[in-house]
Amino acid sequence: MTKPITSRSQAMDKPLDASSADPLYVQLANRLADAISSGTYGPGQQLPPEARLMSDFGISRVTVRQAIQLLTRNGQVVSRRGKGTFVSRASFQQDLSSLQGFQEALRLQGIEPETELLEFSASAGRIDGQLPTGLNLPVRLRRRYCVDGEAFAVVEAYLPAEAEAVGPVRAERLSVYDILQQFLGLRIGRADIAIQCAKPKNRISAELGLPPRSHVLLMQRTSFAVSGAPCEHMRIYIVPERYTFRMSVPGPMQLASAIQPAMVS
Amino acid sequence: MTKPITSRSQAMDKPLDASSADPLYVQLANRLADAISSGTYGPGQQLPPEARLMSDFGISRVTVRQAIQLLTRNGQVVSRRGKGTFVSRASFQQDLSSLQGFQEALRLQGIEPETELLEFSASAGRIDGQLPTGLNLPVRLRRRYCVDGEAFAVVEAYLPAEAEAVGPVRAERLSVYDILQQFLGLRIGRADIAIQCAKPKNRISAELGLPPRSHVLLMQRTSFAVSGAPCEHMRIYIVPERYTFRMSVPGPMQLASAIQPAMVS
Repeated sequence: MTKPITSRSQAMDKPLDASSADPLYVQLANRLADAISSGTYGPGQQLPPEARLMSDFGISRVTVRQAIQLLTRNGQVVSRRGKGTFVSRASFQQDLSSLQGFQEALRLQGIEPETELLEFSASAGRIDGQLPTGLNLPVRLRRRYCVDGEAFAVVEAYLPAEAEAVGPVRAERLSVYDILQQFLGLRIGRADIAIQCAKPKNRISAELGLPPRSHVLLMQRTSFAVSGAPCEHMRIYIVPERYTFRMSVPGPMQLASAIQPAMVS
Repeated sequence: MTKPITSRSQAMDKPLDASSADPLYVQLANRLADAISSGTYGPGQQLPPEARLMSDFGISRVTVRQAIQLLTRNGQVVSRRGKGTFVSRASFQQDLSSLQGFQEALRLQGIEPETELLEFSASAGRIDGQLPTGLNLPVRLRRRYCVDGEAFAVVEAYLPAEAEAVGPVRAERLSVYDILQQFLGLRIGRADIAIQCAKPKNRISAELGLPPRSHVLLMQRTSFAVSGAPCEHMRIYIVPERYTFRMSVPGPMQLASAIQPAMVS
């Protein structure tokens, strides 16, 4: 359920600046975006109606609509016909510049996802033919992540035989990298990552609460120990439109300088 | 139209090895995968029917089906009920470890996409509010990429005012990085990249030949000149299931050694 707006941030009280180089609709969009990111309008909450924004800021309906359009394109709000404009449900991101687990990425954004163990099997990875050839990772761990009570992602991880000793209770909570590093004592040397827009099996769509044949954001990862041996293969199926993978790629000229801080940290 | 299979690769003639540690279905799947990657069975072509694979390799129907299932899961083939099993349409990938244009990534895979100019406007980027705030990139270039006659991606690029001189004829063919580097003489220092599964505007779905409200793979990129000034913002909307972004991320221990070859190259 959405709650009516009861308070406004300071940014929403200051008049717009007609002499600024930024058009009025951009200024209004920035004010609304600030109010959203400061939590004045939370995920799922309704923005003030057009008429109220027009009178509060002394601007035209066209200007208000342009501002809302801009926020809509940025994915920050969603307009529902006849109902008004609502703040988008929270979306999350993961920085691919450093090796980061999925759970760790969510935690860095202040999210503690609820996890639910769907499967912990000692041998599924040996028989189900879903692993790239040559990987000896028999233990399968399937887990659903929910945020604010809604399914957000399903993770399928294949781990070495020794991971069986982790047991289902710990497997529900521990991140895959915690299992590998803290429980199995492995040091991760590198991970190969592939990102696609894919149509998962119906079982996974159902686990995500999506209709059959829906598309999801799929990340596949194979991690290698420092020795070079593969120690994990995983697939993360993420509901569409709520997750962004980010990275910064240095141009050829910048490689040397971009590398410096990474070596220091 | 699909063509009937008229020749088989050598790999398809050699018997399977019952004494191998790999199950027979995995061996058959590998044979078929080799025949697909060597071009014996091209995109859209039909694989031999179950009965033929059973008799050629002296294996059971269950084994053949397991092999087909494995290839299906890997996205290499598609089974159509009552019609048989067909090689998937070609899919492509892009390595994010180095800064690479979209067109360049396709060319590295032997694909010369057909490009079609949808728009070349000197000022769209100034007025349409689709640019992140603060970027002064007024020239908009919209282009559709087709592969084998099918729409594959729509690119929307925003460029500096000087790019207007490129003109629509060159804008249809030149890659964005060629425009920036060769035509405008800019050196790219870095690019910030974001990858999502998103629902584009209906106009873009239509340009891609997709139904409204379809999901696509969306890459957004902002490139910066060596000076630090932003010199390009672009969005690439890619039809689902046919494109993979790949990268290799070094673990904390491996950063120093992983960096060495990059500095030498």
